[in-house]
Amino acid sequence: MEPWRTAIVDARDGEIRIRGNDVTALMTERTFTDTIFLLHRSRLPSPQERRMLDAILSGCADHGSGAPSCATARLAISGNRASVSAAVAAGILAVGDEHGGAGSGCMDMIRAGVERAKLEGISFGECAARVVGEHRAIGKRVAGLGHRVHTKDPRTPVLFELAKQNGLSGDGIRFMQAIGDEVAKQVKPMTINVDGSLAAVLYDMGFEPVFARLLFIISRSAGLTAEVMEELERERPMRIRIPVTYDGEGGSTPSESE
Amino acid sequence: MEPWRTAIVDARDGEIRIRGNDVTALMTERTFTDTIFLLHRSRLPSPQERRMLDAILSGCADHGSGAPSCATARLAISGNRASVSAAVAAGILAVGDEHGGAGSGCMDMIRAGVERAKLEGISFGECAARVVGEHRAIGKRVAGLGHRVHTKDPRTPVLFELAKQNGLSGDGIRFMQAIGDEVAKQVKPMTINVDGSLAAVLYDMGFEPVFARLLFIISRSAGLTAEVMEELERERPMRIRIPVTYDGEGGSTPSESE
Amino acid sequence: MEPWRTAIVDARDGEIRIRGNDVTALMTERTFTDTIFLLHRSRLPSPQERRMLDAILSGCADHGSGAPSCATARLAISGNRASVSAAVAAGILAVGDEHGGAGSGCMDMIRAGVERAKLEGISFGECAARVVGEHRAIGKRVAGLGHRVHTKDPRTPVLFELAKQNGLSGDGIRFMQAIGDEVAKQVKPMTINVDGSLAAVLYDMGFEPVFARLLFIISRSAGLTAEVMEELERERPMRIRIPVTYDGEGGSTPSESE
Amino acid sequence: MEPWRTAIVDARDGEIRIRGNDVTALMTERTFTDTIFLLHRSRLPSPQERRMLDAILSGCADHGSGAPSCATARLAISGNRASVSAAVAAGILAVGDEHGGAGSGCMDMIRAGVERAKLEGISFGECAARVVGEHRAIGKRVAGLGHRVHTKDPRTPVLFELAKQNGLSGDGIRFMQAIGDEVAKQVKPMTINVDGSLAAVLYDMGFEPVFARLLFIISRSAGLTAEVMEELERERPMRIRIPVTYDGEGGSTPSESE
Repeated sequence: MEPWRTAIVDARDGEIRIRGNDVTALMTERTFTDTIFLLHRSRLPSPQERRMLDAILSGCADHGSGAPSCATARLAISGNRASVSAAVAAGILAVGDEHGGAGSGCMDMIRAGVERAKLEGISFGECAARVVGEHRAIGKRVAGLGHRVHTKDPRTPVLFELAKQNGLSGDGIRFMQAIGDEVAKQVKPMTINVDGSLAAVLYDMGFEPVFARLLFIISRSAGLTAEVMEELERERPMRIRIPVTYDGEGGSTPSESE
Repeated sequence: MEPWRTAIVDARDGEIRIRGNDVTALMTERTFTDTIFLLHRSRLPSPQERRMLDAILSGCADHGSGAPSCATARLAISGNRASVSAAVAAGILAVGDEHGGAGSGCMDMIRAGVERAKLEGISFGECAARVVGEHRAIGKRVAGLGHRVHTKDPRTPVLFELAKQNGLSGDGIRFMQAIGDEVAKQVKPMTINVDGSLAAVLYDMGFEPVFARLLFIISRSAGLTAEVMEELERERPMRIRIPVTYDGEGGSTPSESE
Repeated sequence: MEPWRTAIVDARDGEIRIRGNDVTALMTERTFTDTIFLLHRSRLPSPQERRMLDAILSGCADHGSGAPSCATARLAISGNRASVSAAVAAGILAVGDEHGGAGSGCMDMIRAGVERAKLEGISFGECAARVVGEHRAIGKRVAGLGHRVHTKDPRTPVLFELAKQNGLSGDGIRFMQAIGDEVAKQVKPMTINVDGSLAAVLYDMGFEPVFARLLFIISRSAGLTAEVMEELERERPMRIRIPVTYDGEGGSTPSESE
Repeated sequence: MEPWRTAIVDARDGEIRIRGNDVTALMTERTFTDTIFLLHRSRLPSPQERRMLDAILSGCADHGSGAPSCATARLAISGNRASVSAAVAAGILAVGDEHGGAGSGCMDMIRAGVERAKLEGISFGECAARVVGEHRAIGKRVAGLGHRVHTKDPRTPVLFELAKQNGLSGDGIRFMQAIGDEVAKQVKPMTINVDGSLAAVLYDMGFEPVFARLLFIISRSAGLTAEVMEELERERPMRIRIPVTYDGEGGSTPSESE
């Protein structure tokens, strides 16, 4: 088999280099957030870029034990007490377009919208109006808006304000805000959720859309480890009983779960 | 890299052999259960052995959507709609000592007990009395007994009767029944659950303890695919809201999950 | 929380019913393949339908330790020796459009093609010619054709012949064969691989496209358990060293993997 | 179903509190590493504690594409191109006692050794001599020593020096060094690897043994996302062919993988 090629890590006896940076220097002088940025951008971040990543990473680490990712991890460790790796992995498997991963689709929408506004020579407001109208015409939900808990997602104004303070606010945030305004006008006011705001910020920082989901996974891995630990320390195995009603053939009364 | 060695499959252009058996012959003349047996024992099963595996595989395929494995898979697909592989894998990650995997530990207990009875020249009843007593002395639960839904697990008498009819009932079943009798005497009557009965049967069929868990995983993969499909077809994304109460620092009232 | 609804399993004290069928009857009289069919179709299969599922399930169970699913499972157990669940789950995570899951996309293509031929009143040959031409025009690979090991996938003629013998060969197989003929004519002869043939068969049996992938997962779970066992029994932990060459910034000579 | 209890996150409309800390304050003023510490210790770290966690997190993020975790993730995305969550999860499943998780066992050994030295009133050197001797007597490997790439793991002196500079060096590091000295004396010089040094540091910081593995998982999730991205961007699907030799029944010549 031919060796695999990689440009990420060069490890040899006594030396480990990540994207050309000696790991001992990273360990001594840098933060984990710097290393995350370095791994994905092949350079170290500016203090402003690091601030933004830290804000997103802290903002998405955990949102309650009942979120699909956290609940999945807790159910897994409840039945399979021996492997914390398995439980954290199970939690990550619940991350997708519907949970934690909407930022990637939102970045696609932002990129397309910004490019379209420039190409067609229209304002972001006008472009957003068209985009929202087109979503409505085919009955598609606009990405990055609404939250099942928050009327106003508290993380969004923080991200937008930090981006402004750190000189990283650009077309992405402006376009996403235009989208929010248009949905309020054409449908009803809906909060720009954290998927929407981190998508706008990451777009302005020059990341690819898929990174929104990857960053959420890194962030949530921290929360998942804590959720798994709490389940292990505070609860007995198999304590979770999801109530189930059978409504299929031949059924009549509520049944019990295993 | 040196090639990996394997004695399972030999695949070359136009030919696939599993443990020396041409896959086209397996496809034409054999059942999936035969192939499962072949993969793990390097020979095809007798009709009696096949009957027993079929009984276990059908008996463990699904036990309700609320079991940890099934609920984990449903939560995963609820948040990550795009990947059925991810959801089935998440469900399998919930299988462990506490859920679906107790048969392996039970086979260890059976093997040790049968050997001890022979070594010490005592009856299975006497040996079981000692084993149960030793468990009680250290406060350890005896494997393979009790079920959170069933007072009497309906699968156990079926497995024991089938083993008898098929000439496969031996020391394993006798010892497990002795354990059940002793727990009834020393503690209280508890059903031999499916983990306990499949462990006894697989021991009598000559399988290694770890196979109990592997067979459960194969069996449950069938149920998990059906659970994932039902969630996809009948429910909307993110419909699951696990209720959570915060009881940590600074908390006062019930909070909501994401 | 409101109970979850399900029409799959009704489990109550002393009784388990799968799609209305008592599990003890399934265990005594039916095969695992029957139960798989029942879980997904809400009825038991005819002997002919069972034969087809058995053929597919045996045909996809394993194709060698180097396939992505099997190699992933072996790598996982090599680093994480304690959890067979984790290793089997890792293997399933490698199943997708590119490996083991192409049958679903192929069923979509078959369904669209068969409907189009009827709607446009053209023959399957004519329809296949158009479909293949359209794929070529946009540089898209036709699903279900070609195999990196087999010039002629030995499983395909077996599935087609069994379908014919069992009276289950219909539009799906006819259309898939037309696709194969057209690719041979317009591009070059390529084998209809097992994804293509099982897709055709499952279409003719009335399954939904997603079932192709689910059935592969069930089937492969059997092979994965055997691969994991072989790694555990024959190899030492961490024995796998994938060779890696660093070609990024500052690198010069081959580096080693951890 | 009764609500689940948690002391981690309190989320309600417009407000998210992690361990009593408003998430907006964490996002604005704190780093991701602070949030990781907070999630697991219910308080924010001192600058010295943060420095140590950052060093460990950067030090374990990635060690080359060929490590089991990274190779598993790359194989998974090679076959299942659609889900980055699935690939990262697969990589985490390869983390266990043998890869990335040895720190937990090492912390157990350190805790037992430090307590034993105090209880028996012997020096750490004397205690380490006994521990190493006992391992040798039963042929058990001493945790935290040796590395398949590094003669001297470059991360260990960095962690020990940082701990000293930050006033966090204590019994754990002293005992681990005594273990290293004893192995050199009784067997042969072996490097204290990163599992051994992070175990010593985390022990001195007051963490529980399981945290060593959890912290590795968080750290490695960053490297896994980069590995998955590189595979997606630089390689074609299914490009990986693990060479396999069949040595089972009826085999004669090297066979190919799927």
